[in-house]
Amino acid sequence: MSALLRRATPEEQLAEVTRGAVDLVTREDLLARLQKSYETGVPLRVKAGFDPTKPDLHLGHTVPLTRMARFQQFGHTVIFLIGDFTSRIGDPSGRNVTRPPLSEEEIRVNSETYQEQVFKILDRERTEVRFNNEWFGKMTAADMIRLAAKYPVARMLERDDFHKRFKEGRSISIHEFLYPLAQGYDSVALKADVEMGGTDQIFNLLVGRDLQKDYGQRPQVVMTGPILEGLDARWDPVAGKIVGDKMSKSLGNYVGISEAPEEMFGKLMSITDEVMWRYYELLSTKPIAEIEALKAGHPRTAKVELARELVGRYHGAVAAAAAVAHFEQVIVRKERPDEVEERDLALPAGAATVLLANVIAETGLAASKSEARRLIAQGGVQVNGERATDSQAALPAGDYELKVGKRKFLRVHVRGA
Amino acid sequence: MSALLRRATPEEQLAEVTRGAVDLVTREDLLARLQKSYETGVPLRVKAGFDPTKPDLHLGHTVPLTRMARFQQFGHTVIFLIGDFTSRIGDPSGRNVTRPPLSEEEIRVNSETYQEQVFKILDRERTEVRFNNEWFGKMTAADMIRLAAKYPVARMLERDDFHKRFKEGRSISIHEFLYPLAQGYDSVALKADVEMGGTDQIFNLLVGRDLQKDYGQRPQVVMTGPILEGLDARWDPVAGKIVGDKMSKSLGNYVGISEAPEEMFGKLMSITDEVMWRYYELLSTKPIAEIEALKAGHPRTAKVELARELVGRYHGAVAAAAAVAHFEQVIVRKERPDEVEERDLALPAGAATVLLANVIAETGLAASKSEARRLIAQGGVQVNGERATDSQAALPAGDYELKVGKRKFLRVHVRGA
Repeated sequence: MSALLRRATPEEQLAEVTRGAVDLVTREDLLARLQKSYETGVPLRVKAGFDPTKPDLHLGHTVPLTRMARFQQFGHTVIFLIGDFTSRIGDPSGRNVTRPPLSEEEIRVNSETYQEQVFKILDRERTEVRFNNEWFGKMTAADMIRLAAKYPVARMLERDDFHKRFKEGRSISIHEFLYPLAQGYDSVALKADVEMGGTDQIFNLLVGRDLQKDYGQRPQVVMTGPILEGLDARWDPVAGKIVGDKMSKSLGNYVGISEAPEEMFGKLMSITDEVMWRYYELLSTKPIAEIEALKAGHPRTAKVELARELVGRYHGAVAAAAAVAHFEQVIVRKERPDEVEERDLALPAGAATVLLANVIAETGLAASKSEARRLIAQGGVQVNGERATDSQAALPAGDYELKVGKRKFLRVHVRGA
Repeated sequence: MSALLRRATPEEQLAEVTRGAVDLVTREDLLARLQKSYETGVPLRVKAGFDPTKPDLHLGHTVPLTRMARFQQFGHTVIFLIGDFTSRIGDPSGRNVTRPPLSEEEIRVNSETYQEQVFKILDRERTEVRFNNEWFGKMTAADMIRLAAKYPVARMLERDDFHKRFKEGRSISIHEFLYPLAQGYDSVALKADVEMGGTDQIFNLLVGRDLQKDYGQRPQVVMTGPILEGLDARWDPVAGKIVGDKMSKSLGNYVGISEAPEEMFGKLMSITDEVMWRYYELLSTKPIAEIEALKAGHPRTAKVELARELVGRYHGAVAAAAAVAHFEQVIVRKERPDEVEERDLALPAGAATVLLANVIAETGLAASKSEARRLIAQGGVQVNGERATDSQAALPAGDYELKVGKRKFLRVHVRGA
């Protein structure tokens, strides 16, 4: 996390914390609050809510956390709110079978795993970790009725997904109207100055504003950020913007924050230059001025710096430096690494050879035999330094060094049955 | 309350308890439950809810109570449910300023006044008086969310008044959706076999059925009764039915259950024969067979019997007999009663006479001076047995016996100033 050597002005803070923001209600109010905090020294309270589901974060999830970290760089307080109250209830309609209630133990374990991961981005000293069961656990049915009295049905039905389901005759249970109110009440309980969320959260965040007004508080500033594009996104010159799917585990276009340093580094080096600048905007905590300076240099240098920053965030500076060196050696200079993994493999019973495609698939160098055959046909596989071209090639017993793609090496010892 | 000398069959019970009912869901189910109760000796649990607002009941309010009394005649249990939970909350939206939350003391006093009045109709031994704060007071916000999950928004919007307000763009607060669920949950908590209410309650009663099903209970039988017509209703031969406004304090066409025996008796004798049979159906606890027997006789006899039954219910048999005698003497034989109230009145300062109209107004025999003048002009006022016809007539000091209308007598002693 880069440190600012002089105190940032409210205008500078505004520019940094709104990098890539989608909705901002309102910019004037946020500037006014930053100004007041600058004068009084009282930090802003910046809230973001998280479900205590099993966390396994990729870089897409870290976009809001990075924005929170930027607030912290300027001395503001981040409230990492864990929504354990609703998780204890689950989906009481029973329609969502994939969301059973979580036990207290599960919530505790998940929230600890969460914290292990997020404190690689957030500053622990400037973070309040809160659980909303703290106030909802004490609330009575009567309190919930009083809360429900504060919001009209028709306005709740304006929320995009409710509106759509209602129009299409799909069922909405009444309790679903209570959850946005609960989320809004969190802001009241926490006296939030700012709440952040995804663009799909904008309605719920605005409910928070309404409820704060109702409880005599100044309504929070509401800010939503974009969904991060995946590694395979690219610049579309006709559309004049980056196009591509969002980063997602199931699409395979992601970088998990628990991935090995070399893997993370290599993946980040594979993105296009335009996507790199997008990642800088959303994922880097480098100040805008530093990024502008990098834009003046060679894009490859900037890309290495981005990859180094992100690997360093999750694995430390030493691992990041090693990842840079590994990348230069293996990928750029196309050399084999110093250490290569070894595997033993037996010939099929009664056979004298094994298909190269099977070896590649069974050792995990490719996801399937058909992918392995395609890789061989495309010239992406080397055996003992020679490119294999026959997708039906077979290996007798013996030792082989395989290279698949640009970065995968493996030594295989094929044994007789 | 008439006692049945032999045990009524389930079919007889069904006929009695459904007298004049509007909605019945379902008749078959009610008969089946009466049958089972007849065989097992386990009484049905018949629920009706009441707000603990200040009670000042007229006969219109007693229609459901009378139906409950009929269930009790057959040995069933009535649950007189006082909705104190919601009354403690009031209308939290603050839009209904006429419905502030009631204090515990107000609720206690009102519910005692209620009981004083209703146990003139209900059998105390077969009545459970319950307060729904018993279960809702213990409910948490999470429990309320779970309850709200049991019902869909679209279905709630089918309720007539919600539907109308939604269509017309008038606001409905989300908490208004929670009240029908709370009422429905009462039936779950009480394991009600039958719930009764007004026709405007049918939706809420059906919610109770849905929730009972959801909680694994057999859904209650739901029954609504009509709104009682006022004293001024009449038979419309073209429409083939009784037409007229509902009984109401503000329309003046009512009999309050705290009214004096003579007043109550006289009012009831003023209704038409057709309205009398309607009142028999809805207000009398006489069995259908007895009423059929009365229909064979003279309507005047039946009317006296109805008035005697209802006066007796609220003032006892002795007062009822006295009211019958009073009515015969004063109204029918147009005689003055044995005892007439006396009042003293002073002449206005410096005046030798007082206007008869003023005397009538000041002693409460008419609501105002203008009404008094109109009564005199219409020939409705007698002074010492002679009809007064001059609305400007004046009385010097002396003793006078005044008769206004058919039933109001007063002795006035006009004193010099």
